[in-house]
Amino acid sequence: MTDSTYALLEQYMLSCMTDSAHDKEHIYRVLYTALDIAGTEQDVDYDVLICACLLHDIGRQEQFEDPSLNHAEVGADKAFTFLSEHGFSEAFTHRVCDCIRSHRYRKRNPPSSIEAKILFDADKLDVCGAIGIARTLLYKGIVGEPLYSLTPDRTLLDGTNDTEPSFFQEYKYKLESIYDHFFTERGAALGKERQDAAINYYQNLLTEMRAVYEDNAAKLAAHLSRND
Amino acid sequence: MTDSTYALLEQYMLSCMTDSAHDKEHIYRVLYTALDIAGTEQDVDYDVLICACLLHDIGRQEQFEDPSLNHAEVGADKAFTFLSEHGFSEAFTHRVCDCIRSHRYRKRNPPSSIEAKILFDADKLDVCGAIGIARTLLYKGIVGEPLYSLTPDRTLLDGTNDTEPSFFQEYKYKLESIYDHFFTERGAALGKERQDAAINYYQNLLTEMRAVYEDNAAKLAAHLSRND
Repeated sequence: MTDSTYALLEQYMLSCMTDSAHDKEHIYRVLYTALDIAGTEQDVDYDVLICACLLHDIGRQEQFEDPSLNHAEVGADKAFTFLSEHGFSEAFTHRVCDCIRSHRYRKRNPPSSIEAKILFDADKLDVCGAIGIARTLLYKGIVGEPLYSLTPDRTLLDGTNDTEPSFFQEYKYKLESIYDHFFTERGAALGKERQDAAINYYQNLLTEMRAVYEDNAAKLAAHLSRND
Repeated sequence: MTDSTYALLEQYMLSCMTDSAHDKEHIYRVLYTALDIAGTEQDVDYDVLICACLLHDIGRQEQFEDPSLNHAEVGADKAFTFLSEHGFSEAFTHRVCDCIRSHRYRKRNPPSSIEAKILFDADKLDVCGAIGIARTLLYKGIVGEPLYSLTPDRTLLDGTNDTEPSFFQEYKYKLESIYDHFFTERGAALGKERQDAAINYYQNLLTEMRAVYEDNAAKLAAHLSRND
């Protein structure tokens, strides 16, 4: 890829980025991580990979404004239009759009090409470990969701079987179980390197919060009943 | 304090809460932690303490909308008006407002009463450890600030001597150095219990990000120059 092609794609990507959990540095992290993984794989088309990494989240804003939309689908459609209008070949455009369309789900429309698998793993690694914790917390701040939920009698919930959105709920439903299903060996190894950081952070926060909320109703009631 | 007085103060507090980093559970955490600390201190007026904990952040929204305001000052003024209008004694009102006014800074207007010291430490503990990390990240999401900054050549900065607002910058300027100056022994002990969680999280995130950004320019350039 020429410098000027990279600059064109980067400028388009930057024009599409808004919130800080999916800000431009997420894109660069995915790109750099994808290059790391690609170095351990055979027959990677780096032009397709670099282009797909740069454009993989350009549909995020549309999904943020209308959660019924799938940003992978929207992004693939936007990339198709952009690449077609800027003279990229039909074959290249299709391979890039295929990567973008399949970067989100394993089951529906799974990644098939090596570039799509690398993008999938690199993107997933940004939800692993300490960076996954950080991005999830930034996002909870943006959408105004709490760290955890409480029962009606104010007992702390750890997120297990929790139906209310919170950081603990997302950790239990999503972040905790993403380390076993990578498409590349290098992706799996990087995931394992990061896993303890996420587990330890969740456990530390849970331990702190359990200590704070333990017997809170009784502790407070002791001072409220005194003057009744 | 009677149940109905508690309910009156709680309702007023709830009517003042907005963003999720300073949401109502922060208030309850401070209250429960203050009761914990109070159990190890002498001559604590629990009515003053409970009221001050409930109302200590009622000036947050005003400061959020106008950063030149100090929420401790605004909150003390709002509490004075509310308590005066609702028939609380002048002495009680003054003691509560004194706690609220001095809960923010050590040097300017430091806490003097035991209730003010307990509130200060309990509030500070919510910036320690894993909960401090979580609340800082939620807040960065709300205000749209990034996790870290980069030099113009895209080298990762760890927050030290960094002038741009970011999570790493706030960790280095604020979170890292708050464990040595508590007013109560119990507060200091609770802070120490939480310190490793914060240090480990920061170090893990920094390690992950350093690996991602290491030699990124060279890695990318290898594939950009190829087709030039």
